[in-house]
Amino acid sequence: MEEKVIEKLIGAFMFLPGVGYKTAQRYAYKILTGDEQEVKNLASCIIDAKEKVKFCKVCGGFSTADICDKCKNRNSKIICVVEEPKDISSIERVKNFDCVYHVLHGCISPLNNKGPDDIRLKELLLRVNEGDFEEVIIATNPSVEGEATAMYIAKLLKPLNIKVTRLAQGISMGSDLEYTDEVTLSKAIEARREI
Amino acid sequence: MEEKVIEKLIGAFMFLPGVGYKTAQRYAYKILTGDEQEVKNLASCIIDAKEKVKFCKVCGGFSTADICDKCKNRNSKIICVVEEPKDISSIERVKNFDCVYHVLHGCISPLNNKGPDDIRLKELLLRVNEGDFEEVIIATNPSVEGEATAMYIAKLLKPLNIKVTRLAQGISMGSDLEYTDEVTLSKAIEARREI
Repeated sequence: MEEKVIEKLIGAFMFLPGVGYKTAQRYAYKILTGDEQEVKNLASCIIDAKEKVKFCKVCGGFSTADICDKCKNRNSKIICVVEEPKDISSIERVKNFDCVYHVLHGCISPLNNKGPDDIRLKELLLRVNEGDFEEVIIATNPSVEGEATAMYIAKLLKPLNIKVTRLAQGISMGSDLEYTDEVTLSKAIEARREI
Repeated sequence: MEEKVIEKLIGAFMFLPGVGYKTAQRYAYKILTGDEQEVKNLASCIIDAKEKVKFCKVCGGFSTADICDKCKNRNSKIICVVEEPKDISSIERVKNFDCVYHVLHGCISPLNNKGPDDIRLKELLLRVNEGDFEEVIIATNPSVEGEATAMYIAKLLKPLNIKVTRLAQGISMGSDLEYTDEVTLSKAIEARREI
């Protein structure tokens, strides 16, 4: 009987990304032997977050209301386009920079059967058209699909006469020239600046 | 508002062993974007396991009742002593071997302020004294503390005139002599067998 309950818990933990049987087993044992209050807190936080957090109807990021705090309170003229809601928190960590967001919920990726109609491009066009924006920063990932999506969006926005920018590509701060791949290096040379 | 709910969820996930902020964040995003049914299943499995699974009053292993299935149904004359409840499932994976268990819930470890009275030794003595056992296998971990605990238990059981054994130490199956540490190799040489 106890085996069944524990096996079910292990199976449930394997739903989390990157968690195989062994890790799930470790988590399950922690649940069984850990502090009751903390275990209940974890379960209620999971339920709570799943029930309360939906997607913002304007930007597509996480929100507990129909429209998220950022869309409601910020009056920025810069709109930053990202692939996933989690990318917002990465950009939010940058200090002294203020913008609103637009989450595409994916990128154009023919291999995964995702075309321009499967991501939130229509909504972006509508927002840029109707809103009072001065600049669109495209912050899709520096992958093949992310690059292609960025190019596609840039072309799409061209007729609207709005400044469209892309995050700079180059060497990461604190990294080592020796370990930088040649594609990154060639991008860094291409975009070199006078000092 | 949404940040608070998500941050609380990330904090709750960090209760799991080996989970830092970044991993907790990944798990939290999976909760927010994953299938609702699976998320609810995870939460209910956690609550369910925590509420139902207690420790068996006889062996100290996990149990959904006062006495676990193994203690209730098995009539083995071999008792296997392990440090933690999770060690039982490791030994259960061995086929064609049948025993009952005794979980110490730790081992003697002066550095962690754990003496002989802090682990379930009295209960072991009582069980061996009153039960009809023929052999005690000491399966504590092959660490310094586990070895010391094994020695201590062996001495403790000596007056009871029962066969006390320890799991063999040597080279792991499938490993490589080149990468075997010298302590293991010396144990393997010491315990060499004629073939």
